[in-house]
Amino acid sequence: MRRIKLTVAYDGTNYAGWQRQPVLPTIQGHIEENLSRIVKHPVTLYGSGRTDSGVHAVGQVAHFVTYAHMPADKFVYALNAGLPRDIRIIESEEVDEQFHARFTSKNKHYRYTIRNAAVADALQGRYQLHLHAPLDVPLMQSAASMVKGEHDFAAFAGSGSKITKTVRTVYRSEISQEGSLIYYDVVGNGFLYRMVRMLIGSLIDIGYNRITTDDFMQCISGKKTISSGQTAPPHGLMLMKVTY
Amino acid sequence: MRRIKLTVAYDGTNYAGWQRQPVLPTIQGHIEENLSRIVKHPVTLYGSGRTDSGVHAVGQVAHFVTYAHMPADKFVYALNAGLPRDIRIIESEEVDEQFHARFTSKNKHYRYTIRNAAVADALQGRYQLHLHAPLDVPLMQSAASMVKGEHDFAAFAGSGSKITKTVRTVYRSEISQEGSLIYYDVVGNGFLYRMVRMLIGSLIDIGYNRITTDDFMQCISGKKTISSGQTAPPHGLMLMKVTY
Repeated sequence: MRRIKLTVAYDGTNYAGWQRQPVLPTIQGHIEENLSRIVKHPVTLYGSGRTDSGVHAVGQVAHFVTYAHMPADKFVYALNAGLPRDIRIIESEEVDEQFHARFTSKNKHYRYTIRNAAVADALQGRYQLHLHAPLDVPLMQSAASMVKGEHDFAAFAGSGSKITKTVRTVYRSEISQEGSLIYYDVVGNGFLYRMVRMLIGSLIDIGYNRITTDDFMQCISGKKTISSGQTAPPHGLMLMKVTY
Repeated sequence: MRRIKLTVAYDGTNYAGWQRQPVLPTIQGHIEENLSRIVKHPVTLYGSGRTDSGVHAVGQVAHFVTYAHMPADKFVYALNAGLPRDIRIIESEEVDEQFHARFTSKNKHYRYTIRNAAVADALQGRYQLHLHAPLDVPLMQSAASMVKGEHDFAAFAGSGSKITKTVRTVYRSEISQEGSLIYYDVVGNGFLYRMVRMLIGSLIDIGYNRITTDDFMQCISGKKTISSGQTAPPHGLMLMKVTY
């Protein structure tokens, strides 16, 4: 049995998320279907984690085990030949049996992109949240920096979550601006369900003076159980990199 | 009667080109339909020129005349509210009656984007021609520079063209490279039907040593009537800017 690691990029617009579903098209579903056809036995693909419907990735990681003898790097070409154009295998390599895409990941980097301008971008709009009214970026930057460190992020877990351990460590939490684009870059050892979209949702609320930085800090320190901010829509979110 | 100039960006993927057609969706068709509804009288939109099905724009220009009293800059918002997300009006302003989007344009800037790498880009693939085998970029650069100046571009006119005057002046013709992306930037006082796609098609053939720089020069000088190179596919092409 060999263990193959895949690095995957996808435009999540047309998919019901990463995770296989019985009917709706998903990234995992498409890759598993193509893999099974290539290696001629059923394959289960293990992703580093799910991404929601509409969320994109340039560095998702997954692994599978197979009996096939195909050289590991050839899976890139064999899979891309059959996959839809908005799902691309960037890299494939053999890994040892200790590797597990989900359980051995050290940290993940997500980026959320906001276009803060009068008009949305006709070409990149599917990868950006368009917000017309000007955001207070320095205030967002200051609040974002407070997310760094180990915190109880219970206030930033989507209601669909069953996880009881809500403490996570965030290594980077940074708002930056390039022209009309505002980026939120966050790196952590793990994220709760919808945590990144709730964090940036709250940072947007801060940027519009709808919630205070103090309220935000209360939420991060786990002391406050009232709702944090809104959950930002999925299409601005991109899984950039998974580190092992 | 007032004359309004529009600057338009669009992702051409889902459209049968700029020009209005009876059934298929087009950029002009969508904008005219929305304009007529807004100003409450039939509107004809004059574009700086057509773009083929699948070609994109970040700086297409068009104008129309209207009886409506709406402030000129408000057309941006009124139109964007009704247009599909992949067509965006960037700017609207009143111009004098001498202005004509097509007949008073001084030059146009087109960019063609090639991704020269093993794997296509899952997210930007709709705006790039993906070519796997490495291109000889310095050779393409040298050939591209020869396009500058006044030439008879008859060899670079698509067969659908009825135009008999085939001399055009090219002010810029430049191949540049950023990582795995290769750009062809061309600025001219006018382009024949499919001329840009035939120019970059030939430059690609040069980059693969399928035609020589000498053959290419013969075509540019109008001496050669044999076919130049291939016509590159539309999705790599973007209308960047129209100057008046």
